[in-house]
Amino acid sequence: MPANDFLTDFHHVATIGATPRNGVDRQAATAEDALTRDWFAAWIHDAGYTLHVDGIGNMFGLIDWTPGAPYVLVGSHLDSQPLGGRFDGAYGVLAALHAARNVDQLVTESGQAPPFNLAVVNWFNEEGGRFPPSVMGSSVFAGLFDEDRMLDTTDLAGITARAALSEIGYLGTDPRPATVSYAEIHIEQGRILEREEIAIGVVDRSWYTQKLDIEVLGEQSHTGATAMADRHDALIAAAKIVLMVNDVTTQFEEESLVSSVGQLTLEPNSPIVVPRRVRLIADLRSGDPQIVQAARTTLLTKIAALAEEHDIQINVTDFDIRPIRYFPEDGLQLAEAAVANLGLSSRRIRTMAGHDSVAMNNIVPSIMLFIPSIDGVSHCEREFSTDSDMVTGLRLLTEVARQLVNGALVTTASTPVYAEV
Amino acid sequence: MPANDFLTDFHHVATIGATPRNGVDRQAATAEDALTRDWFAAWIHDAGYTLHVDGIGNMFGLIDWTPGAPYVLVGSHLDSQPLGGRFDGAYGVLAALHAARNVDQLVTESGQAPPFNLAVVNWFNEEGGRFPPSVMGSSVFAGLFDEDRMLDTTDLAGITARAALSEIGYLGTDPRPATVSYAEIHIEQGRILEREEIAIGVVDRSWYTQKLDIEVLGEQSHTGATAMADRHDALIAAAKIVLMVNDVTTQFEEESLVSSVGQLTLEPNSPIVVPRRVRLIADLRSGDPQIVQAARTTLLTKIAALAEEHDIQINVTDFDIRPIRYFPEDGLQLAEAAVANLGLSSRRIRTMAGHDSVAMNNIVPSIMLFIPSIDGVSHCEREFSTDSDMVTGLRLLTEVARQLVNGALVTTASTPVYAEV
Repeated sequence: MPANDFLTDFHHVATIGATPRNGVDRQAATAEDALTRDWFAAWIHDAGYTLHVDGIGNMFGLIDWTPGAPYVLVGSHLDSQPLGGRFDGAYGVLAALHAARNVDQLVTESGQAPPFNLAVVNWFNEEGGRFPPSVMGSSVFAGLFDEDRMLDTTDLAGITARAALSEIGYLGTDPRPATVSYAEIHIEQGRILEREEIAIGVVDRSWYTQKLDIEVLGEQSHTGATAMADRHDALIAAAKIVLMVNDVTTQFEEESLVSSVGQLTLEPNSPIVVPRRVRLIADLRSGDPQIVQAARTTLLTKIAALAEEHDIQINVTDFDIRPIRYFPEDGLQLAEAAVANLGLSSRRIRTMAGHDSVAMNNIVPSIMLFIPSIDGVSHCEREFSTDSDMVTGLRLLTEVARQLVNGALVTTASTPVYAEV
Repeated sequence: MPANDFLTDFHHVATIGATPRNGVDRQAATAEDALTRDWFAAWIHDAGYTLHVDGIGNMFGLIDWTPGAPYVLVGSHLDSQPLGGRFDGAYGVLAALHAARNVDQLVTESGQAPPFNLAVVNWFNEEGGRFPPSVMGSSVFAGLFDEDRMLDTTDLAGITARAALSEIGYLGTDPRPATVSYAEIHIEQGRILEREEIAIGVVDRSWYTQKLDIEVLGEQSHTGATAMADRHDALIAAAKIVLMVNDVTTQFEEESLVSSVGQLTLEPNSPIVVPRRVRLIADLRSGDPQIVQAARTTLLTKIAALAEEHDIQINVTDFDIRPIRYFPEDGLQLAEAAVANLGLSSRRIRTMAGHDSVAMNNIVPSIMLFIPSIDGVSHCEREFSTDSDMVTGLRLLTEVARQLVNGALVTTASTPVYAEV
């Protein structure tokens, strides 16, 4: 049974880079990421499909029914956060592999080649934990990020994404598939579907997100010998900024803004030295861009006052700004009809998290589907979704992919997007 | 002229591991520390003295006038903080080398061997920036810290002190010199001498110091997809602790307590993940142990309340507690008389910073001398003392060492301390 094959594969991949409490740790271009990539490549090979790896490490498994025809892409990402969950990303890739094989069987049984070919994709570095920014591979594919600049980004040890990909053998040179549409399935990472007992979330838009890169420059001195009044402690100012970034959410309606600091490094980070430099990254997200802008303005004003109060320099740089993206209405309706045909319930939903589909939706009509997450937790080891919900999602993705390769969402006026190689 | 030789050597050593703004970066057992060690070994060799390196990497340059007699030790440390100053430690070692050579010439000229031999020491890892705790080599020598345990300490990359010393070739096996007394000269790292225009500080006691190792355990989650109310953000609680550690000083008379967080690490430290674990080290110091105890009690009470408020676990461990140590009165008087004989001014002074002399004073009568620091800043690149003040200190240290090898401070009842090998 295909569903059993899918579950066997899913639970096998969850053993690669497995952590003690049922999570996985497969950060982009690490040895563990390489192992899942090798597994993906072997699966594509065993299925008789063609593997392409592009210049940013994206992997494509190509099914060519009509030589020369452009592709529908289905997929997600196999990389994870440090001590991340085993569902985030991996579920979407595993479901895409099995959905593609299901569609391939339907095509074979029908004896009729559809107008478009199909490709399963494993995007590079969706998580961005090691190499910020996140959603890197699909954003390069979509022309939103510059490939060379992304390959030059470094992790905290100073290793470039280029060197790391080369090291694991996945800095490819293959051409990118010409693409007409995209579909992805993912866990919700929130608790709306669970709370409302709904099987499928059809994502209609993404949240507005933006990050602030904040550098606090104090003066290094001796923790013992320097009088408190003579210090310019970068960490004191940084601690106040961490609390500001948290407290700013209370200015707005509950749950209309999420805001936090996930990364913070200090120099020299020695127990008996007053810190000279702290760098931190604030992540602000809302369904309403004006709320993020208002929060940003509040923070900049307060940070300027803090710099003056502490006689310290604080540099703030905007980066990774992602506007709200709307998924096309005909794609939403296609998904909703497919859900109904399977006898399931669905609702429209927004995504607070970034996804490869949001990047892809910039260049081709894209469909993004959610299955329920237990307790709504994600980016942690206890992230969980049930086998039954995963199999339901696979059935839906199969149907969506089948309609897409047969030309759904692609108007006669559409031109396939030939991504630059 | 000896003073010129000293200045030439001092300014040469300041080029080893030099940083762009006149500082040095020679953390314990790094390649840069190895270069200064090689320089020290060559100097000892060229002077015709004997080099011993012990099991914790302390280096001794032995001058043997009377074979079998125990030693007076003079010295300090050549390691530095990350982006540290070029005076802290290095001045004391350079002054000790030249004071020893001056005394050796006086002995040669007199034709009379003094009762004690003389040795110049470069202590391992006084700074503790890479391998906490600080004052490591001299504390092992004095029997305050266990050698094996110290060799097993790791830096943030997981490398042990043992492996790092072995790597640079300074994990020695030589016997430790039997010792009768100790003298050290150092920059003040405060602004008392500069403010009062006094040439020499004679250190009469150390401050009470203690550290707290604080671990904050929250839950990792997605910065975008997790509702603010569902988070257990370890960094928010940690930021509040950083501010508590700073604010607790205001409970007490001004400058009676210094307190700060110099080291803080978070996990997983990814821009889009709510931190699950933060570890930070608080450093508390006062001339009055009761003030440190009162500050500690306040912090523990507030941290317990914080843990409850945030529904988060916080573990606090006391470590590196160093009681007030008094330097012997006859040593203070010896130093004061020597200062007066040179026509200089002096005052008694307390040290807020830890020093190798404080460890050594536990086992043999020790003398600790300060020269002025400009602006009182230390553990930073702009740390500064004048050539003139350094040369004055060298003259004083020469006289102190001369008196010590001739038996000063050593009563007839004293037994030399044979440190364990």
